[in-house]
Amino acid sequence: MPMIFETLVTTVSAAGVEHLAPMGVRYEGDEVVLMPFKPSTTLANVVATRSAVLNLTTDVRVFAGCVTGRRDFATMALEGFAVRRLADTLAHVELELLRVEDDAQRPVLHMARRREVAHGAFRGFNRAQAAVIEGAVLVSRLGMLPRDKVEGEMAYLQIAIDKTAGPAELEAWRWLTEAVKRHLGGLSPVEAA
Amino acid sequence: MPMIFETLVTTVSAAGVEHLAPMGVRYEGDEVVLMPFKPSTTLANVVATRSAVLNLTTDVRVFAGCVTGRRDFATMALEGFAVRRLADTLAHVELELLRVEDDAQRPVLHMARRREVAHGAFRGFNRAQAAVIEGAVLVSRLGMLPRDKVEGEMAYLQIAIDKTAGPAELEAWRWLTEAVKRHLGGLSPVEAA
Repeated sequence: MPMIFETLVTTVSAAGVEHLAPMGVRYEGDEVVLMPFKPSTTLANVVATRSAVLNLTTDVRVFAGCVTGRRDFATMALEGFAVRRLADTLAHVELELLRVEDDAQRPVLHMARRREVAHGAFRGFNRAQAAVIEGAVLVSRLGMLPRDKVEGEMAYLQIAIDKTAGPAELEAWRWLTEAVKRHLGGLSPVEAA
Repeated sequence: MPMIFETLVTTVSAAGVEHLAPMGVRYEGDEVVLMPFKPSTTLANVVATRSAVLNLTTDVRVFAGCVTGRRDFATMALEGFAVRRLADTLAHVELELLRVEDDAQRPVLHMARRREVAHGAFRGFNRAQAAVIEGAVLVSRLGMLPRDKVEGEMAYLQIAIDKTAGPAELEAWRWLTEAVKRHLGGLSPVEAA
């Protein structure tokens, strides 16, 4: 079973349009392995430019933002690399495409590490950050889940938020709970059952 | 509400006996704030030696180990500092006691950062690591929780383990599930209700 790490991947189109997407990645030896869905902007951009940046951030607003329609997080240009990185990230890794294993649903992009730079220190596990990550996964799958499962999991995750969150985690959690409310409020009794 | 980070704190007694304990810490300005229970070995050691090391590790076996009776994780001596650090940690911070706010249950230890050193890079959020942290919290509170809550939470956390764990997370999770089984197996039907 491959170990999966939740990260933010930045890319750019051939026309120069930036894109930001949350992505579960694998590390295989020296490679970083991305498996974006087909079709997706990340996939198209990496195939077009053969480049991406892996952003290793603990700012969970970016994860919650991406699944609730917010993608205007600050980015910074990198010297000698076409793709920008997130401004607020513990580290970034500049990636170059080595090869693509095609797949009908999720092509496998094998990426070489060109350069990696640390920008901040890991401060320990924060249970609220983990709850936001789980909540973001839940929100990205709302259409596939029954109401009681969604409500039960959000109530469980709320405990870690209440005990250990800081302002960024609270803001991210608010975005997620609003998205859940909008979704459940819009369901007919039959759909929500 | 203060933001809490789950870390491992190493200390040493006046007689030179090492101690390792999982601890939720706060960062206040330049200080690291520890709140060990009274009585506890960590509290006694910090008061005696005025020193501690904050270990910022993503090796969740250490968290799961400490709540299941395993504390023989490798440590390393530090130059010019009496307390050892965990060998496998992304970073460590050498701490010196500034002042104690006494409390009947959890005295507040305000610690100054003497030196901090990075040893490894943060690789992103791993949902299985977060599940082990939640499972370790659960195991540390087994005596206070009803059987159905314990079983329900372990089943929920198992999902992230199955999807995203590596060998270290699987080993940590096995220690936790064994501890849960031992506890639930040892309960009489009345206690377990």
